[in-house]
Amino acid sequence: MNWQETLTEYAASFIEGLVHTGVKEVVISPGSRSTPLAMLFVEHQDIQVYMNIDERSASFFALGLAKASDRPVALLCTSGTAAANYFPAVIEASLSRVPLIVLTADRPHELRDIGAPQAIDQLHLFGKYVRWFADMALPESGQEMLKYAKTSAIRAASMAKGVLPGPVHVNFPLREPLVPKMDQPFKHASHIALPYVTEGHLSIPFETYKAVADQCSDIENGLIVCGNIDKPGFPEAVLALANSLGFPILADPLSQLRSGNFEKEMVIDCYDAFLRSDKVKEKLKPELVIQFGGQPVSKALSLFLKSLGESSELLIIDGGGGWRDPNRTGTHMIHCDETVFCQQLEPLLEKKSGTSWKGIWIDLNQRTRNIIQSYIQSISDIEEGKSVSKLCGLLPPDSTVYIGNSMPIRDMDTYFHNTEKTVRLIANRGANGIDGVVSSALGAAVHCRPLFLVIGDLSFFHDMNGLLAAKLYKVNINIILLNNDGGGIFSHLPQAEEGKNFELIFGTPTGLNFEHTAMLYNGQYTKVLNLEDLSVSIEEATSNEGLNIIEIPTDRERNVQVHRELWKQVSWEIISYLQSDETC
Amino acid sequence: MNWQETLTEYAASFIEGLVHTGVKEVVISPGSRSTPLAMLFVEHQDIQVYMNIDERSASFFALGLAKASDRPVALLCTSGTAAANYFPAVIEASLSRVPLIVLTADRPHELRDIGAPQAIDQLHLFGKYVRWFADMALPESGQEMLKYAKTSAIRAASMAKGVLPGPVHVNFPLREPLVPKMDQPFKHASHIALPYVTEGHLSIPFETYKAVADQCSDIENGLIVCGNIDKPGFPEAVLALANSLGFPILADPLSQLRSGNFEKEMVIDCYDAFLRSDKVKEKLKPELVIQFGGQPVSKALSLFLKSLGESSELLIIDGGGGWRDPNRTGTHMIHCDETVFCQQLEPLLEKKSGTSWKGIWIDLNQRTRNIIQSYIQSISDIEEGKSVSKLCGLLPPDSTVYIGNSMPIRDMDTYFHNTEKTVRLIANRGANGIDGVVSSALGAAVHCRPLFLVIGDLSFFHDMNGLLAAKLYKVNINIILLNNDGGGIFSHLPQAEEGKNFELIFGTPTGLNFEHTAMLYNGQYTKVLNLEDLSVSIEEATSNEGLNIIEIPTDRERNVQVHRELWKQVSWEIISYLQSDETC
Repeated sequence: MNWQETLTEYAASFIEGLVHTGVKEVVISPGSRSTPLAMLFVEHQDIQVYMNIDERSASFFALGLAKASDRPVALLCTSGTAAANYFPAVIEASLSRVPLIVLTADRPHELRDIGAPQAIDQLHLFGKYVRWFADMALPESGQEMLKYAKTSAIRAASMAKGVLPGPVHVNFPLREPLVPKMDQPFKHASHIALPYVTEGHLSIPFETYKAVADQCSDIENGLIVCGNIDKPGFPEAVLALANSLGFPILADPLSQLRSGNFEKEMVIDCYDAFLRSDKVKEKLKPELVIQFGGQPVSKALSLFLKSLGESSELLIIDGGGGWRDPNRTGTHMIHCDETVFCQQLEPLLEKKSGTSWKGIWIDLNQRTRNIIQSYIQSISDIEEGKSVSKLCGLLPPDSTVYIGNSMPIRDMDTYFHNTEKTVRLIANRGANGIDGVVSSALGAAVHCRPLFLVIGDLSFFHDMNGLLAAKLYKVNINIILLNNDGGGIFSHLPQAEEGKNFELIFGTPTGLNFEHTAMLYNGQYTKVLNLEDLSVSIEEATSNEGLNIIEIPTDRERNVQVHRELWKQVSWEIISYLQSDETC
Repeated sequence: MNWQETLTEYAASFIEGLVHTGVKEVVISPGSRSTPLAMLFVEHQDIQVYMNIDERSASFFALGLAKASDRPVALLCTSGTAAANYFPAVIEASLSRVPLIVLTADRPHELRDIGAPQAIDQLHLFGKYVRWFADMALPESGQEMLKYAKTSAIRAASMAKGVLPGPVHVNFPLREPLVPKMDQPFKHASHIALPYVTEGHLSIPFETYKAVADQCSDIENGLIVCGNIDKPGFPEAVLALANSLGFPILADPLSQLRSGNFEKEMVIDCYDAFLRSDKVKEKLKPELVIQFGGQPVSKALSLFLKSLGESSELLIIDGGGGWRDPNRTGTHMIHCDETVFCQQLEPLLEKKSGTSWKGIWIDLNQRTRNIIQSYIQSISDIEEGKSVSKLCGLLPPDSTVYIGNSMPIRDMDTYFHNTEKTVRLIANRGANGIDGVVSSALGAAVHCRPLFLVIGDLSFFHDMNGLLAAKLYKVNINIILLNNDGGGIFSHLPQAEEGKNFELIFGTPTGLNFEHTAMLYNGQYTKVLNLEDLSVSIEEATSNEGLNIIEIPTDRERNVQVHRELWKQVSWEIISYLQSDETC
């Protein structure tokens, strides 16, 4: 067997292993050393290839594909700093538990660490951020080595999809010549015997369920907190649990519980507003909290949970076996698949009838929602919160919203209220970075349509390169660009009081006219200056193909003012209500 | 002492330590956790702050500043994936030995690894790519802790500037509140006692010099190879050595030996062209090679050196104590400062008179240069090599050229010939990435004027975000954008023969109209379609302030054709010459 055949069968076996484990998409950045894998990926009929020149954008694009499809996605690049550009997305995938299979081509061993071109030390390049790392053998022929290649791929994909999903990294040292044999390259590889993998989930003993059920049966004042969690079947399971327990669910916008065609009486969506009042917090102290998912966006909720101290039990249910306890108030860490936990616990409970505890939460939530809605309705300028609220109202059914970090996710928390419409909300909440958000949304938009990306100008700027994918792959996306010309979130922080140098270090206005960006990528661009135009533009964008950018110029100061005024109103009205309630 | 005073004095002490060790510039990306360091950097009168929103661009901008100024440059960002965006530049700095001081703000210990927002594991984030890592203590008051902060900074800067210069990483866990006291913050810190550092260099015993001198005295057929090396004093020292030895210097464009007001008889600048012929290689076999600097760009030179095998001695002089031997043909690794080595060795030598060996090299080089120059003169279209050659001719004295990787550096190797003009050539040749080149050039342009960046369209695309620095800081830069709409280098590789999918995977045309990019950043833009316009545009750009982009649309196929034709001509004429020479 000649070298070209050896190379081809080895690489083809690896790719067959990925396909066998459910990989359907690969995002490739051009390069020379990765030639055999790239050429064979393109040739495989069950693989969709996306080329993406900027590896940083490529990796976030893959993250978006994986989030939206709930399947592992492969990444491929050449040797050198190319792979280092994946690092931010690898970290985000690690923290937000998204399966990515990072494949890097490398120089062979004899060219490492001797000043050879494009040769960097790629072993364990991503440190502790990957679930698994393998430095592959050089391509070799023989049935044993082809099985090794194929099962390495299966193992990589399986590790990426495991109990704690996340990125894996497989490094391929390759010698020249690099061009594979393109005549039926998968002929042999597809017949290699291989293992199927049944991935397991974390489960707990029946006695533990029984103990939790007993604990809950004595408690009326309980709560469920759902942070960022996007698992099929979970919403139904946790709602059934909440109903049986009589515990209201404090549902983060990323819990997927605020929208969809199901009963939402128990879904509390305005806690971020009313939990800012000490008086309310005092009245609403739970004895028991059951928490699912990543940390909720609401700082008010975090402070509330933290304030409970030892007066309350906190059960943290984590299907990934992690330690999601940012307030350090957990009393029981339960490593169990979240849906399984709800489904197993619920039948052991005696259903509680309507309790006053539940009633107060529902009542307060309803009143707060009314206050927020009439407040935002009273605003007539195209302020950031108003824009987000308006968008929420106009979203067509079965939409997806990708939400930028920093201010957009906070405004979404305030203004995205319970709705019958099915709306999937996605955000990069592993490390909460403003980087890579455009590409992540574009990746998701491949699978979800219509998709709206709500993003601030700095985050948009950070990943403008990502827009090339929209142009090259004709991805349909509607970008709502909230442009306050700088970092809006800093105006909410104490340094805003320090006038001197604030604009230089924190405000960081760029003064960019993003219409040029839209033109660079053949996008449709609209600048919207009033609410009526916003409605029209959103409706038009929904039916337009391709890249639509709707820019809304906003003001950082005004955003702070609107938030503060809203919290004041909610606080004032809720306290008045509680006082009148007490005097009754 | 209250918390704010503690925080301020601690952070101020660290910054004073950096200033004390010669740090004058810091590139900051906006963030909340980094607030105390950012606010104090801006306040320090000896520090120049550059804000740069995209951390990837920020870090390459810092790399460019450090390369051009030959001083360590600090970087600062907030916690989370922000820091991971530095990774490509950290790797490039590590491999190209550029001192960067990476400062990352972090969540305090109690918020690590429990799902807190923007908290990632930042310890040893850059793995083996940094020369030194420190996870600082939380800010504390007291003279001991302030000395600790200040000396940590001194140590960081000193490690970055050490024998093997490179990046260092200092991580700062910080608790809220984060705003420092802005009334005379450096008052105390500037008085803390501290060590001065005298950095050493690698040196070898006198006996070794003597042995090398003895070895050289017997040898007529010797060569000096200078790769990428940019150290003050080195050109003079190595030229003196070459003259005494009678060894021609094969000088890479990044050796800084091809330009400047000194005698260049011994500087061979066209070896890449004539060392492609086996006949020439056979005739020119040296007995001894002394090599300085990073690997030369020329593949022909590499193959030549590799072909020598055991018939030749290869002394590798490495002032960083590394192992720069990509051909694995080194016979003696000498860990000694390059300039010191030349200066110490030269007086021990007996100066050789003109030898035939030296004569042949000089003669062949001169003939080849004539062939190349008349060949390129005969080309009348605005082809890539022609454009580079034209630029070389038009460069004003005391210019700097930042050269993009992939094709531009190769064309520069071919067409940048010995000149009396002082022209500094810089490129990112640590890992040879196409990433971050725009920002690196902008960083260099702060110190070097006029500066020309010669770059291909994919590399330009990769770091367009870097152009924001040109807009915000009114950096003067002239960008020669060679736009062949895709990856030109792949057309030179074997996969170009595989027609199917070649454009998709390797060609990767983007079809972008970069005039929009120029408009986004308020740059002056010219598209040049013929040689006359190119001359005019380059001359105009040199006198224009700010960002000038001169785009030259080129053709990938044509570039391959021009190269191949040139190598054919050189080979044919040189072989004819050698044959006629033999028959004489």
